[in-house]
Amino acid sequence: MKVESVLQMIHAHEPNSYARNSALPRNVMLKAMPLVKERVRALYRKALFDNYFAVADLGCSSGPNSVLAISGVIEAIMGLCSQKGHSPPEVLVFLNDLPGNDFNSVFTSLPGFYEKLKEKNKVNSTNCFISAMPGSFYARLFPSRSLHFVHSSYSVHWLSQVPELPEQNKGSIYMASTSPLSIFQAYLKQFQRDFTSLLSSRAEEIVPGGEMVLTLMGRSIPDPTSKDCCLFWWWLSRSLVEMADEGLVKDTDIDSFNLPFYTPYMEEVRDVVEAEGSFTINHLETFEMNWDPFYHEDDESCTFDRSKSGRIVANNIRSVTESMLRSHFGDGLVMDNVFERYARLVGEHLDVEKTKHFSITISMTRK
Amino acid sequence: MKVESVLQMIHAHEPNSYARNSALPRNVMLKAMPLVKERVRALYRKALFDNYFAVADLGCSSGPNSVLAISGVIEAIMGLCSQKGHSPPEVLVFLNDLPGNDFNSVFTSLPGFYEKLKEKNKVNSTNCFISAMPGSFYARLFPSRSLHFVHSSYSVHWLSQVPELPEQNKGSIYMASTSPLSIFQAYLKQFQRDFTSLLSSRAEEIVPGGEMVLTLMGRSIPDPTSKDCCLFWWWLSRSLVEMADEGLVKDTDIDSFNLPFYTPYMEEVRDVVEAEGSFTINHLETFEMNWDPFYHEDDESCTFDRSKSGRIVANNIRSVTESMLRSHFGDGLVMDNVFERYARLVGEHLDVEKTKHFSITISMTRK
Repeated sequence: MKVESVLQMIHAHEPNSYARNSALPRNVMLKAMPLVKERVRALYRKALFDNYFAVADLGCSSGPNSVLAISGVIEAIMGLCSQKGHSPPEVLVFLNDLPGNDFNSVFTSLPGFYEKLKEKNKVNSTNCFISAMPGSFYARLFPSRSLHFVHSSYSVHWLSQVPELPEQNKGSIYMASTSPLSIFQAYLKQFQRDFTSLLSSRAEEIVPGGEMVLTLMGRSIPDPTSKDCCLFWWWLSRSLVEMADEGLVKDTDIDSFNLPFYTPYMEEVRDVVEAEGSFTINHLETFEMNWDPFYHEDDESCTFDRSKSGRIVANNIRSVTESMLRSHFGDGLVMDNVFERYARLVGEHLDVEKTKHFSITISMTRK
Repeated sequence: MKVESVLQMIHAHEPNSYARNSALPRNVMLKAMPLVKERVRALYRKALFDNYFAVADLGCSSGPNSVLAISGVIEAIMGLCSQKGHSPPEVLVFLNDLPGNDFNSVFTSLPGFYEKLKEKNKVNSTNCFISAMPGSFYARLFPSRSLHFVHSSYSVHWLSQVPELPEQNKGSIYMASTSPLSIFQAYLKQFQRDFTSLLSSRAEEIVPGGEMVLTLMGRSIPDPTSKDCCLFWWWLSRSLVEMADEGLVKDTDIDSFNLPFYTPYMEEVRDVVEAEGSFTINHLETFEMNWDPFYHEDDESCTFDRSKSGRIVANNIRSVTESMLRSHFGDGLVMDNVFERYARLVGEHLDVEKTKHFSITISMTRK
């Protein structure tokens, strides 16, 4: 499966779109924002930009989150300059995603974004130029030494392709406790290859001293069957297997479907960066977040509702997997059926155990 | 009427889209291509680019023409470098159009474009990075001194807004022989203001010595009611007036609708460039082209077919005006009805007289 042709978020106006189910990635992005701003300040201290600042956001997707990170970066620059009494630099932004992303909806939101920016900074013109660069971030995307800062949130866990698996991953669509050892090895190898390509491509494109902050899903322990990385896919496997038991899906179709996804352990990320050699790691942080981004166990007014949480998680996962499932299983697969089952299974699971997503944020400087 | 919100080509997959009715602008673009390539060579002679070349295409639209100009520029660069035995520069391309343009369809065509480019130049990677910058070219779009070459074809005749008209332009939707003098003056003034903004914005963005080639519709004589600039809009006015006579459209709606369009006389273009002062004119050329791009009077095998030619012109004009007409006249205006009449009137007209579009190509160097 070539990911470029099937990894595609549902267009923003659809009810099951990523745009309408993006509370989780939004919370993740906001969590990493203090570090993003800290690294912009580091660039400023190094005097790496004066009157021009170029920044790229990899895997921007569409919807309200697509300019959220960029907005934080611009805010940090404006804040710094106003504090120091400098006039702000011109900022060139490249929003990146695969060519099938719904960039139209991102673009129609830009005039409003510029207006807000002007109001906030009390200026007549923003000096911000927001463009889009479509393509895979596992290859070259930008001219050499053309960027000061690169950001990506919740995109780098998507691999460039499904790993070539030496044997069948029976009854599962991702690494699972039932998977043979060779499956784990193939997934790790694909991650290492892809992440190395990402680093070496960006190494050409980022100026020496430039910064990169990436947030991706990962796992908390070396064991690749860790609950915090596999379980939400496991329940999707189970939904499909249930349907196979009822004759609605072929077993062989499940056996041959695997997600182009990898949730690395922190040390696996570190190892690739060190082996590739172009970047110095500044920070490597991890954090957890509830599967249901609207449920907060610390908030007494917030009661757990199994079916609501199940549905929220299902909508979120549906928005990022529907195009892949459709491409593999064909139009015969009724998505509402899959994700109603998934919502039920996830709701039941969360009732017993509040498993969380585990995320890794890494900040690096181009040597 | 704010042009940014209503000047919008029909999305590429629609039968009446610009993408499917773009033979005329294609022919126009190809006509100016030798000059475009000559100016790229001039840049090369001036040694203004070595390993990096940045180019923008203003008003790229969507469909097969959207990368045609850029493709010619890249071809010229590759040809020059291969001839001189130099390795080609990295090329950063900005495709520009208003935020409502169907950039999604442009982007999905890019992987195929890159593949062809690689095949043609027998290379594994193209070093071309094609991005999109949405926004009005009558304001700043790019960082200062960031571009070597700017191109635009058949876009600059669209004004940033309908001129503020001091009196009603009764029964017409553009300048016409029946229009009062103040209408011509208001249109010219709007063109002068807009074209000045375009030049002064690009003057900031183009490096000294950089080049710009623009092709726009114009007129062959100073008289602003010249047939070659007004007549194809006049027949659209007549179609609407016919419908008003039948009670299908309100007269007052026609009187209050005016196109944000201007077809300057060559000297009007020259005057604005000289008054703005940032650019030196190298070439100012004009050429004519049949309204029906498929009809060639020199070709004996090509017989004139009134209804076919009428339909072709109607489809072409519909693809660029439908969103504006709909926005002004409301959904009650049946487009098929308007453009069936238009096709008939234009067919009858062309039967009597083969009026042509008059175009101006101007090539300028940033001082």
